[in-house]
Amino acid sequence: MTTEKMIIEIKEWLKEAAGYIKVSLTNELSISQKSGRTDLVTNIDEETQAFFIKKIKEHYPNDRILAEEKGFNKIDSLAGRVWIIDPIDGTMNFVMEQENFCIMIAVFEEGQGQLGFIYDVMQDELYWGGKHLGVMCNDEKVDPPKDARLSEGLIGMNAYMYGENIYSAKEIGHASMGVRISGCAGIELIAMLKGNHIGYVSNLSPWDYAAGLVLLDECNFKYSTIEGSPLSFSGREYFLAATPHAYKEIQERFILK
Amino acid sequence: MTTEKMIIEIKEWLKEAAGYIKVSLTNELSISQKSGRTDLVTNIDEETQAFFIKKIKEHYPNDRILAEEKGFNKIDSLAGRVWIIDPIDGTMNFVMEQENFCIMIAVFEEGQGQLGFIYDVMQDELYWGGKHLGVMCNDEKVDPPKDARLSEGLIGMNAYMYGENIYSAKEIGHASMGVRISGCAGIELIAMLKGNHIGYVSNLSPWDYAAGLVLLDECNFKYSTIEGSPLSFSGREYFLAATPHAYKEIQERFILK
Repeated sequence: MTTEKMIIEIKEWLKEAAGYIKVSLTNELSISQKSGRTDLVTNIDEETQAFFIKKIKEHYPNDRILAEEKGFNKIDSLAGRVWIIDPIDGTMNFVMEQENFCIMIAVFEEGQGQLGFIYDVMQDELYWGGKHLGVMCNDEKVDPPKDARLSEGLIGMNAYMYGENIYSAKEIGHASMGVRISGCAGIELIAMLKGNHIGYVSNLSPWDYAAGLVLLDECNFKYSTIEGSPLSFSGREYFLAATPHAYKEIQERFILK
Repeated sequence: MTTEKMIIEIKEWLKEAAGYIKVSLTNELSISQKSGRTDLVTNIDEETQAFFIKKIKEHYPNDRILAEEKGFNKIDSLAGRVWIIDPIDGTMNFVMEQENFCIMIAVFEEGQGQLGFIYDVMQDELYWGGKHLGVMCNDEKVDPPKDARLSEGLIGMNAYMYGENIYSAKEIGHASMGVRISGCAGIELIAMLKGNHIGYVSNLSPWDYAAGLVLLDECNFKYSTIEGSPLSFSGREYFLAATPHAYKEIQERFILK
């Protein structure tokens, strides 16, 4: 029952935040750099995060929060119930394209993913689900994609890793049907859930993958750090998610070689 | 008057073809390789091309046709009126994603672009226009994007050129705000017309760029082979299109250096 109520609340919050974000696109954004000229944050990232934090504190005052923007981007452990939030995933696309960005929210309990939400705001496509609940796109059930091989599908990648051939990203790309670079983890994870891409290789922070992991689990994908370790939920890590077949091939042919 | 009638007809043909393509996605595709394992053609590419050729031959029997699939992919000159057609631009995406592909149609007269149509079928977004007619997205006028510098925007690229650093593609990408790879020329050209991307670097055949050139002209973009020569409309060529500022920077800093 708690889960059902929580799902309804989170969906309401997402729609409210999306409405606010869409209106904000008609105004001038206030844009700042974080670690460098291509790592941006806007007033809308910060205000959207503040909106979710306010809602969580009102409804679930004992829960803890890990979120991308300042003040919330570190957590000592995943003990208890933890919300992991990326208020705008793909901020560069948000600024440059006004599309191809997502809101991502995950609910974890004692380190286990319980609920995940990836909302492509401009397409109005909400991929959501939870442990043993499967995955839905808006109100439609998503069937787990087939367990395709690396050579049978497209793979999403981080531009820097592909360009610099980090962890053989270039060779992995050549062994696939092609590389796609969207600049947004949420868009890439949705492409996997749709069955459009067989995998995703990137360099991600916990809020970039937390919601995705819950949904990937329900669709039988495999994921880990690119070297095969469990993701640490602390700091950026090289990330691999793929169909079981493609995951094994990438590990055996390119990473552990 | 001829132009107006032609625009109405082409739009009708595009909608009819799109309807057929969407229905076809519910059936099994018949897929063949052309030059290699990642160069595909489907029965739908061929049937869509045949549909347009039939329409043109019925309505404009004296016109000539240059189109991607077999029998029409070479033309000796652009004399007279020539239709340049890509029935499905982004066939790999069509097969793998069932989205992110376009239909592209251009009408040239004596080598001059007169009309251009890029139709993102699944988004139902038709970018179209003509010489001195401006550019429209469906029924809305598109304002020419601002003349942004390379450092101010995202740039679309061909995956192979970026990965292999052909014509300094990697350095061009690093000087921009980021590289995006969609696997579809039409999607990249639309991203420029929207003002989402400042440029596009790729390796293209005439049917990949003909419609785009008409629309890029109307929005004040610059384009040429990547070395700065006029496009030949014959065979594949390394292609550069960008805002005037970014075009000049790419040429001076990376190509002619």
